[in-house]
Amino acid sequence: MIQKLISNIQKTNAPVVVGLDPMLGFIPEHIKNNAFAEFGETLEGAAKAVWQFNRAIVDAVCDLIPAVKPQIAMYEQFGIPGLRAFQRTVDYCRKKNLVVIGDVKRGDIGSTSAAYAAAHLGRVQVGEKLLTPFGEDFATVNPYLGSDGIQPFLDVCREQKKGLFILVKTSNPSSGEFQDRLVDGRPLYELVGEKVAQWADSCMGENYSYVGAVVGATYPEMGRVLRKIMPKSYILVPGYGAQGGKAKDLVPYFNEDGLGAIVNSSRGIIAAYRQEKYASFGEAHFAEASRQAVADMIADINGALGH
Amino acid sequence: MIQKLISNIQKTNAPVVVGLDPMLGFIPEHIKNNAFAEFGETLEGAAKAVWQFNRAIVDAVCDLIPAVKPQIAMYEQFGIPGLRAFQRTVDYCRKKNLVVIGDVKRGDIGSTSAAYAAAHLGRVQVGEKLLTPFGEDFATVNPYLGSDGIQPFLDVCREQKKGLFILVKTSNPSSGEFQDRLVDGRPLYELVGEKVAQWADSCMGENYSYVGAVVGATYPEMGRVLRKIMPKSYILVPGYGAQGGKAKDLVPYFNEDGLGAIVNSSRGIIAAYRQEKYASFGEAHFAEASRQAVADMIADINGALGH
Repeated sequence: MIQKLISNIQKTNAPVVVGLDPMLGFIPEHIKNNAFAEFGETLEGAAKAVWQFNRAIVDAVCDLIPAVKPQIAMYEQFGIPGLRAFQRTVDYCRKKNLVVIGDVKRGDIGSTSAAYAAAHLGRVQVGEKLLTPFGEDFATVNPYLGSDGIQPFLDVCREQKKGLFILVKTSNPSSGEFQDRLVDGRPLYELVGEKVAQWADSCMGENYSYVGAVVGATYPEMGRVLRKIMPKSYILVPGYGAQGGKAKDLVPYFNEDGLGAIVNSSRGIIAAYRQEKYASFGEAHFAEASRQAVADMIADINGALGH
Repeated sequence: MIQKLISNIQKTNAPVVVGLDPMLGFIPEHIKNNAFAEFGETLEGAAKAVWQFNRAIVDAVCDLIPAVKPQIAMYEQFGIPGLRAFQRTVDYCRKKNLVVIGDVKRGDIGSTSAAYAAAHLGRVQVGEKLLTPFGEDFATVNPYLGSDGIQPFLDVCREQKKGLFILVKTSNPSSGEFQDRLVDGRPLYELVGEKVAQWADSCMGENYSYVGAVVGATYPEMGRVLRKIMPKSYILVPGYGAQGGKAKDLVPYFNEDGLGAIVNSSRGIIAAYRQEKYASFGEAHFAEASRQAVADMIADINGALGH
């Protein structure tokens, strides 16, 4: 799947991923009203609104981008109907030939990690049948529990040609509380990065590994160091736009081949119509505003990269 | 909810929690055959088997124990039908007056953590309505992202009187890879424990906090230290039984008031009928085997504690 991600990035000339994190507050009133008219103010109604909103945005931007990243928490908060909307979104995006990164941040040990890996990247055996529960292409994974927790994900990635992005240095202000603490004079995130590099070596595609890392755009100096520590890992970069990361900050996350990183924007794209810059589209044309925001983001990043 | 947990523990005189982690391999053939006859070898069939299995075990043990801990990965692997079985299990156990600890190990930042907190412990606003997505009483949470990731869970705990168990030192062999690394001469898990103590202080019940910690039974010396660092936090202790933790190892996890810890066993209870010790019950009487295993576990732990 790393090959498909790279191929999609090269085809679109766009090292970007759109985060499908549909908070109800981002969804235009006419979509919510229609959904509530059908299902009431229920979890089903919320899920219907989420799905209609996602589909319109995906339809509007899918030819410009290589990948999407649905954040499962935003679906899980609407219970079973919400998770059904997550599944529909994953299926729909895959049909559109987009690579789907499930932002699930799962992580456990042994058979429990194996169950999460099966749920999101693999298949589960039921009697004689092998069934696909959610079927994303990549998943984000939390490394705090160590190799026991990662190994079952690696096994599924090898078997299914799927991929991971392992949390190394997150984009939030308090990410340093534990991640930056010095161990033998070096921050913990570097040690995690070294482990990621080892795991990556054991799961290689052609030039890049199935095993990537999450490194926030808000810490470009750390990105520069981590890029070197994990040369074969794709870096998924959150924090561009709404969280404050600028295009010029993204340069160190890329390798000299122009590859090696993919930059996420969520609300900056899906809620673009609420920004002053795109207000002229109007709420009714929210998806066109998202398309323009994607085009602007790609131009901004490629400008900084000199592509 | 910490008050209810303590009250349930005192009523049953049983500081134990049964992990409802129903791998298909643990479920007796007659239950699977019935479920597959109705739904085929499908995710629905697997979920039906899981639910029937859980209900029989809960019916057999609910008067002996204060709490259950369903591991959501084991349900998530069966997709939407599996998550519906999770929800039915949560609802059923709450009706039986059991405290339900959702072993979800979620963790993210800001609005995403808020969405997970709403999903599992709180309510979500849809139009004018406040709806309950999954409604567990406690959730396990991963701290790697720092305070930004924990704060939204604390807010929901205060508002809803729900609780957390934050991963501090996990029971698995490779938990030391990151958790044991020395920071200023002290292992990282101690720093995480200190943070847990601060978070706990901000969410107090009567004598204990809504904010607890996960510390594996397999590291009793670390348990002793962490008990002192987090005096107001209940400790959820995995690793007893199948993972190798012994009853005498559990003593340091408790406070002098005889409270402060709750010990989990999952497969040791739910798959008891497959152990030689309980084989005489036979597969048909798997739930009675689980009941006997619970009684034996309680006696074992209370013996070690001198209760």
